[in-house]
Order: sequence, then structure tokens, then C-alpha cells
Amino acid sequence: MRVIGIDPGLTRCGVGVVEGTVGRPPRLVAVGVVRTPVGEDVALRLLALERGLVEWFDEYQPEAVGIERVFAQHNLASVMDTAQASGVAALTGARRGLRVTFHTPSEVKAAVTGSGSADKAQVAAMVTRILGLDAAPKPADAADALAIAVTQVWRGAATNRYAAAVAAAKGKR
Amino acid sequence: MRVIGIDPGLTRCGVGVVEGTVGRPPRLVAVGVVRTPVGEDVALRLLALERGLVEWFDEYQPEAVGIERVFAQHNLASVMDTAQASGVAALTGARRGLRVTFHTPSEVKAAVTGSGSADKAQVAAMVTRILGLDAAPKPADAADALAIAVTQVWRGAATNRYAAAVAAAKGKR
Repeated sequence: MRVIGIDPGLTRCGVGVVEGTVGRPPRLVAVGVVRTPVGEDVALRLLALERGLVEWFDEYQPEAVGIERVFAQHNLASVMDTAQASGVAALTGARRGLRVTFHTPSEVKAAVTGSGSADKAQVAAMVTRILGLDAAPKPADAADALAIAVTQVWRGAATNRYAAAVAAAKGKR
Repeated sequence: MRVIGIDPGLTRCGVGVVEGTVGRPPRLVAVGVVRTPVGEDVALRLLALERGLVEWFDEYQPEAVGIERVFAQHNLASVMDTAQASGVAALTGARRGLRVTFHTPSEVKAAVTGSGSADKAQVAAMVTRILGLDAAPKPADAADALAIAVTQVWRGAATNRYAAAVAAAKGKR
């Protein structure tokens, strides 16, 4: 299964593509960031982001999409921009008929490092090891995107089983 | 100038189209909501929202877009959904080459009622009066969308003058 992981953002949107199945180490296909011009109108930045992401989808033809779920924490204005970017990323995947799954930051950290409270450096180090890379991918958003993609590969099957169980339980009511 | 106002949301996204110029009462063209199925995957709801909004843009051919700026306040999960919907709305406008302007809730209230702290009923009542309608548009999201559209018509020229002044000042540095 080829999966694209997206760490949404307007200034730097991390994108990572990996291939793998549950229980086996996934393989790196590609990693990078989509940047949009700071200071440009938000709507035009969202449009630039969409174009950038479409290029990634076109080139690497992922079969599933994992996106990091945005939480409102510190900088509210930038969180709203990030959430808007997340909407565009989800839309880009859905438009191609792909299943789009959101993962919380702690789900991603737990999947990759075993601890939901791991820091960025630990996540990057584990991603580097899991994918057998020579060095940690840079910038941090790119490493995060790979962590999300790895999470999607490993959690994907579990999520689908869970969804199937819920659907089955609902059918029995 | 024909303007579309959008009150972003996934369950009900308010849409209002008005025609007018600064200093004159605008005219109602159309008003309604785009709904997406509650319980459906967020990515599929964003896709449904995009399709609904594209129909509005196709049918009414607005020349500018006003969107209510989303703030993180109470229900964080729903705010994030709303922000993602806002991103899709902005993208839909930008893709057509339209200028997309965000207005804060208090800017909209102030433009329509004269008070930045007006309540929803006051906003709906003033929108009804400004547009010469027989009754307030329902649901509330539809009335809000019209208020945003009226704000866009009235503030549009001012915003452009301000942007031009800022650009000129930057050029002088």
C-alpha cells in the first residue's frame, strides 16, 4: 500500500510518501515540502498549496492519505491557517476517491516512537531508523509528514477493522 | 458589483449573493445553505461542500467573495471543521480568479448594525431591512451569509483602498 502523509501548513506543508504493510518496515518513496509565499493572500496561498499537492498526488499516485489533525493551542491565527490548509489537503485526497484519515499528533508520536509525548527530535530519529535513511529528513515538517505516513500504514488496517466493527455493531441494533 | 458571502460550516454553510455598490442599499440575488451529511468522513464532507459551492458560483457568477473569519472559541473540534470548510470556500473562490476577503464576526456586525457586539437577531433584522425583504432569511447561517455579503460590498472598496495605500507605503521604504 502506498500512502501519502501530510503535515498541513501554509508556509511549509510537509509531504511524505511511503510504501508498506502493517507489521513490516515501510520504504521511503519521496519526501519534501510544499511552500506558499508568506504575505500573499490566504486564498491564493491555499490555491498554491492545492496545486503543489496535486503535483505530489499525480507523480506518486498514493492509495491512501494520512493528515495530522490540527489542534488549537498557542498561536490562534496560524492554527486557523493550518486548519484551512488541512481542509485543502483533505479535499485534494477526497477528490481522487482516496480514503483520508486524520491522526492526532500524539497518535503519530505513539505509532512511531512508542510514546505519545515524544519530542520532534525523537520522532525524526525514529522515522530515520524505521525507513533506513542515512540522515533525518529536513525540514522538520518533512520528517513529520513521513511519521504521519508511517502511522497511516501501520494504523490504516487497524482503523479499517475498527470502522468495520462499528458498522457491523450499528447494523445489529 | 455582485458579491457572494459565505458563512463557513460543514453541517450548514450559509451562502448569500447580493448586488450593490458602496453607499447604496444592496439587492438580494439569492440566499441558502449548502449542507453536508453529519457522520460522514470529514474529507467527503469537504468534497460535498466544494461541489455545492461550485454550483453557487456557476449559477450566480459572483465577482468577489467575502468569508467570515473563523475564531477558536468554545467547541474546538467544530471550530477546526469550520476552519477546514473555510479553506475549501476560499480555495473555490481563488480558483476562479476572484478576490477573497475575510471579515471578522465583529466587522460584519459593525458593518450591518453599527455595533460590533450586536446579537444574531439584530444582524438578521438589519439584513432584512437593508435588503428590503419581507421576512428574515432562515436558517440563521443564511442570514449571516447575507450579512457577510453586504459587509463585503460596503467594505470592499475601503479594503482595496487600504491595501493600495499599504502597498504604496511599502514601495516608498
